[in-house]
Amino acid sequence: MTSTPTLANTREELSGLLATARREGRRIGFVPTMGALHEGHASLMREAARHADVVVVSIFVNPMQFAPTEDLDRYPRTLPEDLEVCAANGVAVVFAPAVEEMYAGGFSHDKVRDGVTVHPGRLATILDGESRPGHFDGVLTVVAKLFGLVQPDVAVFGQKDYQQLALIRAMVRDLCLPVEVVGAETVREPDGLALSSRNRYLDPEQRRAATVLSRALRAARERATYGVPAARWAAMSVLKSEPLVELDYLALTGTDLGEAPENGEGRILVAARLGSTRLIDNMPILFTTPAERSA
Amino acid sequence: MTSTPTLANTREELSGLLATARREGRRIGFVPTMGALHEGHASLMREAARHADVVVVSIFVNPMQFAPTEDLDRYPRTLPEDLEVCAANGVAVVFAPAVEEMYAGGFSHDKVRDGVTVHPGRLATILDGESRPGHFDGVLTVVAKLFGLVQPDVAVFGQKDYQQLALIRAMVRDLCLPVEVVGAETVREPDGLALSSRNRYLDPEQRRAATVLSRALRAARERATYGVPAARWAAMSVLKSEPLVELDYLALTGTDLGEAPENGEGRILVAARLGSTRLIDNMPILFTTPAERSA
Repeated sequence: MTSTPTLANTREELSGLLATARREGRRIGFVPTMGALHEGHASLMREAARHADVVVVSIFVNPMQFAPTEDLDRYPRTLPEDLEVCAANGVAVVFAPAVEEMYAGGFSHDKVRDGVTVHPGRLATILDGESRPGHFDGVLTVVAKLFGLVQPDVAVFGQKDYQQLALIRAMVRDLCLPVEVVGAETVREPDGLALSSRNRYLDPEQRRAATVLSRALRAARERATYGVPAARWAAMSVLKSEPLVELDYLALTGTDLGEAPENGEGRILVAARLGSTRLIDNMPILFTTPAERSA
Repeated sequence: MTSTPTLANTREELSGLLATARREGRRIGFVPTMGALHEGHASLMREAARHADVVVVSIFVNPMQFAPTEDLDRYPRTLPEDLEVCAANGVAVVFAPAVEEMYAGGFSHDKVRDGVTVHPGRLATILDGESRPGHFDGVLTVVAKLFGLVQPDVAVFGQKDYQQLALIRAMVRDLCLPVEVVGAETVREPDGLALSSRNRYLDPEQRRAATVLSRALRAARERATYGVPAARWAAMSVLKSEPLVELDYLALTGTDLGEAPENGEGRILVAARLGSTRLIDNMPILFTTPAERSA
């Protein structure tokens, strides 16, 4: 299913490419990305193809979701390789706009915040939102813009960015956006490390240490039949065993990122730094209280 | 052109009614209202019909754009009469949702602000936004929701709410919403009072005094060839002549609500209270400096 996708750099090119598909009533599936594509992104493209007739991928490193102190400038840009990943995964259209195409007159945080943006609310004040203030304003605003430009029937996001997925679902619900959101499973390296464009920042020693995130999550899942505190303790024990890892947060929550249930489906999420690289991971977790277990 | 519009109370009814029109590629025109419809609204409906094949009117008194101290409860609800206005002006579909249909689980300011909303930015901090904090957050959020539910090709708003129109244009631009926005001229009573659903709050003496708003704007326009300060002075003189009117603001601005140009098109806007009723009005104004005039 390799065929070269058509590249659109401007809004006009994009809407021209999609006009026919829309007129013919073909379902449009959309995968927004920041490029530096890997097998995790490829799995999102294949998921989109299962829900749509035409798959569109956007490649845009969105400056609004990076704080001035963050890694915007060093974020990897690999367009030729990215187009090959799209070609190999049935993508019809790649939208790769310049910054000026998405932010007229060029981007600055002050200018964008003077204008109309999407306000993500309370769910953006915890976890990654607490560590990265303004990050989810940037994510939701650019995703709203991309939804407006692509007008997809269905959009696919990775569960790897679980809080982002929850916030996009909240935006679609609260702003009544006419798009179906699909969350796709995290793809992992054989040793358990969740795929991320930022993994390429890791030196060999950090790369080896980075498996501690998924190992900690798995350890917690194994102890979740002993209750939330036991699961947390298990994860912390693993995390503390790795001196290269500086923990940002470990959170055991409900599937909605609210309080963890005593019994039932929840989520365990972790963020940590290895050197200057910040990695996140999460997994589903099934909590049962000891009482429940012995009943 | 009288024909009974179809009434939709739920999202499902609405999308069912519009599915065929959308599939057949007919252009959908949209006029969002809070009901209590008058000839000003009727002119928006007729304007929508000039740009679209199918006209949809929403009637929804949006609690999010009223502060707890404002007139949400006494805001006029006149659905049977509203449907007659729609019928007489070629409207195909009236969407009149309950509060719970637009705000799942019922409305509260705190709950909605916990979720995802539209943040209107700097333009919402001046004029009506200064007098009514949070008002435009509510307007833009509900209009975004209605755009998502109706998915119009074109939406018509009155210039009577000039700042609202400017903010809706800003939202469409900044969030790339796929809708064309048309601003329609203000409709006035024979004595110059701009039509407003709130005019019905006025007692006879207030109603007589209310003409001072449009008279002040006209006086300013006549003096605008003498420059901005002269125009302002002319408007203020008229406003001060009416003791029943408590001025909120008088603003002379550019067409973008920025600084008034020394020469060129601008806008003059006024807001005032008559008893507990707050009225607004605005007009275009052409500024020329005295130097320019004598040149």
